[in-house]
Amino acid sequence: MTDQDHIEIIEVAHEMANAARLAIMPHFRAASLIAENKLEHDFDPVTAADRAAEVAMRDVLAKRRPQDGIFGEEFGVSEGESGLTWVLDPIDGTRAFISGTPTWGVLIALSDVNGPMFGVVDQPYIGERFVGGFGVAEVTGPMGRHKLATRSTKTLAEATIFTTFPEVGQKADREGFEAVAQRCKLTRYGMDCYAYALVAAGQADLVVEAGLSAYDIQGPMAVIQAAGGVVTNWQGGAAHDGGRVLAAANPEIHAAALEILSRA
Amino acid sequence: MTDQDHIEIIEVAHEMANAARLAIMPHFRAASLIAENKLEHDFDPVTAADRAAEVAMRDVLAKRRPQDGIFGEEFGVSEGESGLTWVLDPIDGTRAFISGTPTWGVLIALSDVNGPMFGVVDQPYIGERFVGGFGVAEVTGPMGRHKLATRSTKTLAEATIFTTFPEVGQKADREGFEAVAQRCKLTRYGMDCYAYALVAAGQADLVVEAGLSAYDIQGPMAVIQAAGGVVTNWQGGAAHDGGRVLAAANPEIHAAALEILSRA
Repeated sequence: MTDQDHIEIIEVAHEMANAARLAIMPHFRAASLIAENKLEHDFDPVTAADRAAEVAMRDVLAKRRPQDGIFGEEFGVSEGESGLTWVLDPIDGTRAFISGTPTWGVLIALSDVNGPMFGVVDQPYIGERFVGGFGVAEVTGPMGRHKLATRSTKTLAEATIFTTFPEVGQKADREGFEAVAQRCKLTRYGMDCYAYALVAAGQADLVVEAGLSAYDIQGPMAVIQAAGGVVTNWQGGAAHDGGRVLAAANPEIHAAALEILSRA
Repeated sequence: MTDQDHIEIIEVAHEMANAARLAIMPHFRAASLIAENKLEHDFDPVTAADRAAEVAMRDVLAKRRPQDGIFGEEFGVSEGESGLTWVLDPIDGTRAFISGTPTWGVLIALSDVNGPMFGVVDQPYIGERFVGGFGVAEVTGPMGRHKLATRSTKTLAEATIFTTFPEVGQKADREGFEAVAQRCKLTRYGMDCYAYALVAAGQADLVVEAGLSAYDIQGPMAVIQAAGGVVTNWQGGAAHDGGRVLAAANPEIHAAALEILSRA
């Protein structure tokens, strides 16, 4: 890809994120919000906002990048010809969304078979957008535009760790998380995809989660990597297919957490 | 108090919250942020921002309401002559603050011996302010100005419940919370004082916490009460001194949670 390709892709990604914001915001905290129950036995609400946002992003791609494939949480796979795929989670954190917290996000990644090369984490209510890839790593939001850079925390004893639910996933997932967390300075919950943005922004050191889908992690992964962080699975392998994910501010703190998680 | 008194108090509270925002924001997510360790054996960080914000609010009161008492988290009690006390937590959620999450808040209450009659929960990063008391119940923020009204959820099976840490407090505190949460539809963590604002805004039904100080609860309590909610301790008594607190969207859901918590 040329620099011109990179510029176009970044521009298209912002256009998609803008379209998603417009589609979602009329539904956020609206009294009429109806959360459907996608899986009967597992609480996974999907809202009209979720679908409207993915449609809005797909409309942008149909006009601007028809050659690319799409893999979206709501509408699945659309094949492309470029070898590039846009991986979309229109609302990551639907439980956050239906409880009004500003911790859900619109996740966008552009990926090839090796994983994401560019990503966006957008929080429409705050008006905050984290972008990473193709030499860019920046946040725009309430405090203006700033470069993203992860921090240099070297030991777990100094680290802040995030996960969304204390259960984390299955029993072994919880045990793995807790084995790392009990050695950390500060453990925080409930941030959904926003936790990854905080690692990219140098505010936290680790996010440990399990049971993720590809669209849950590819956008955040690209942003964290662009900001200097490391994202793998709990065995140190590729994380872009989801599953158990370890996101870390730098190689040293990644290694410290991985040593524990790889035994879980 | 006359209507004119109420108008003046509301105006002063906004002026205090504005002053606190200005004092705090240069420190939020700043690389140089230094969290001191107030209690050696219990992680309770206090920042320069915390102190600067309380000083800024006390300066407003010295000019506008010198007759009132002050009880602030950072600088303690200043006696007044009016029988009214401003109860201030300049940054509620210091752990949230040092990990970059937008879930901390500036808490302001005006109280007499019977508890808070007016309160503010302000989130400076989002630019969102929840105000309640003297016939006012409103939020101003990214979506403009709206009335606050709690929702009418009647059963725990339909309810969304919040607490900040899964540990909640001591063992019995955690067991009490879990006994309620396991009967709720959705349990969420990590929101600090923002969870109370979400109850006032009709986005959540219950907040259950323990080990609170008076300044942690008086601001949120006034806002929730003004929006139609109920805030008591776990025995159904007054909550304005802190301790174990149950905040609920309405009397029915309050009664359902209280029945369980009162046995904890």
